[in-house]
Amino acid sequence: MNITLAQAETAVQAAKAKATELGTLMNIAIVDAGANLTAFAHMDGAWLGSIDISQKKARTARYFDMPTGEIGKLSQPGGSLYNIEHSNGGLITFPGGIPIKNTEGEIIGAIGVSGSTVENDHIVAQAGVDAFG
Amino acid sequence: MNITLAQAETAVQAAKAKATELGTLMNIAIVDAGANLTAFAHMDGAWLGSIDISQKKARTARYFDMPTGEIGKLSQPGGSLYNIEHSNGGLITFPGGIPIKNTEGEIIGAIGVSGSTVENDHIVAQAGVDAFG
Amino acid sequence: MNITLAQAETAVQAAKAKATELGTLMNIAIVDAGANLTAFAHMDGAWLGSIDISQKKARTARYFDMPTGEIGKLSQPGGSLYNIEHSNGGLITFPGGIPIKNTEGEIIGAIGVSGSTVENDHIVAQAGVDAFG
Amino acid sequence: MNITLAQAETAVQAAKAKATELGTLMNIAIVDAGANLTAFAHMDGAWLGSIDISQKKARTARYFDMPTGEIGKLSQPGGSLYNIEHSNGGLITFPGGIPIKNTEGEIIGAIGVSGSTVENDHIVAQAGVDAFG
Repeated sequence: MNITLAQAETAVQAAKAKATELGTLMNIAIVDAGANLTAFAHMDGAWLGSIDISQKKARTARYFDMPTGEIGKLSQPGGSLYNIEHSNGGLITFPGGIPIKNTEGEIIGAIGVSGSTVENDHIVAQAGVDAFG
Repeated sequence: MNITLAQAETAVQAAKAKATELGTLMNIAIVDAGANLTAFAHMDGAWLGSIDISQKKARTARYFDMPTGEIGKLSQPGGSLYNIEHSNGGLITFPGGIPIKNTEGEIIGAIGVSGSTVENDHIVAQAGVDAFG
Repeated sequence: MNITLAQAETAVQAAKAKATELGTLMNIAIVDAGANLTAFAHMDGAWLGSIDISQKKARTARYFDMPTGEIGKLSQPGGSLYNIEHSNGGLITFPGGIPIKNTEGEIIGAIGVSGSTVENDHIVAQAGVDAFG
Repeated sequence: MNITLAQAETAVQAAKAKATELGTLMNIAIVDAGANLTAFAHMDGAWLGSIDISQKKARTARYFDMPTGEIGKLSQPGGSLYNIEHSNGGLITFPGGIPIKNTEGEIIGAIGVSGSTVENDHIVAQAGVDAFG
């Protein structure tokens, strides 16, 4: 199973609405089950450097089927996955990337959000995920 | 002046409608005046390899402020821009990338489309540009 | 639908048998529907440079859902896809990569073979595909 | 001396059997004495991000002829090899990569495993090494 463009666009719109509600400017990326980019939106004035980060967060979340922040807990100095970020052409392991599941619980893609604090990034990403209710 | 996300999304939707009218499956990328990705859509079942190509076409069109196919005429063996594709992390110089201008004629971004013949790619990209009527 | 490791290993073994029959030494790569590496084998003494080429052929075949040699016909100087090889981190567009379909005709992955003439590479890749009879 | 494909495939099968025994889904890569990929297997459903990591672990183990986890002890902040992961196109220095020796004790290649905890990754890699008994 793979996320459709219609589903991805719904997730992007939900994330944008949440970003606006929080007064933030976000970059929002959706990848499919194969970690390939499916949809992307850069809100006007959002950080340019977050264009790449949002995509890397989405891919990282699908690469390991967990929220990016969970990986970051293990990739710290002394942690079991220290410097895992050097793999796969660059990972981002702080919060803002979350896998997307279908109603059967199968992972069909992931969302990555970047543009504010990592707390806000995660909240906006979750809003995108919740659009699959 | 810079393309807005709202304008970019309008262009993406116009391009998608044209792609559907032609019976094709396209990847559609919009970059801003700084050649940074602003919006992207991968139609269900479109070529995975065209995700990157559509973005490279959009950037190439903005990097040189002309349709990508114009550059391709000059990058052939013996041509004045032979193998320019090696620059900028990889250019795509066949048709499907077109600069986007505002009503004052100022370039505010570019669109890149990939997924079918280069003729169709160009037609769909033009449909995206024409949404700025 | 996605190729399984068991299917991929069957294809690798069929390709190896054909390579041996032809008296060639091959590198054989299988990617899944998302263009991610699933199985790989480097026959003893095969060209080291073909390790990368076989993987790029497999990805190229899946990226555009056609045999790699078909793309190469269009990417020549003056062709409509001239220098497409600069995309996607490097494509290989001469023969030796072929999509793999399931019995319903759905593409579930691709095989890439490199190590001899492109004619032999293609024959060995086809032997891998034919293992899905 | 160099690992043969037959030996590499035996190591992959032994590692797969151990992975199954542990209830894990692994990516398993074997490189030869020249640090070139010789065999690879991605178990169905294993993390996509571990495709690259398993290969980087195998190369790292052969690059420095020691288990990857030993390098990780020295690459921490303040350590003598701090951030060595930036070299060679990206190293992985946590456990899961182990050199492979022949019966004379000569290093003929290495195995890299990724897909679970680093403890499990190392156990599965060791099972691949032990196939050279």
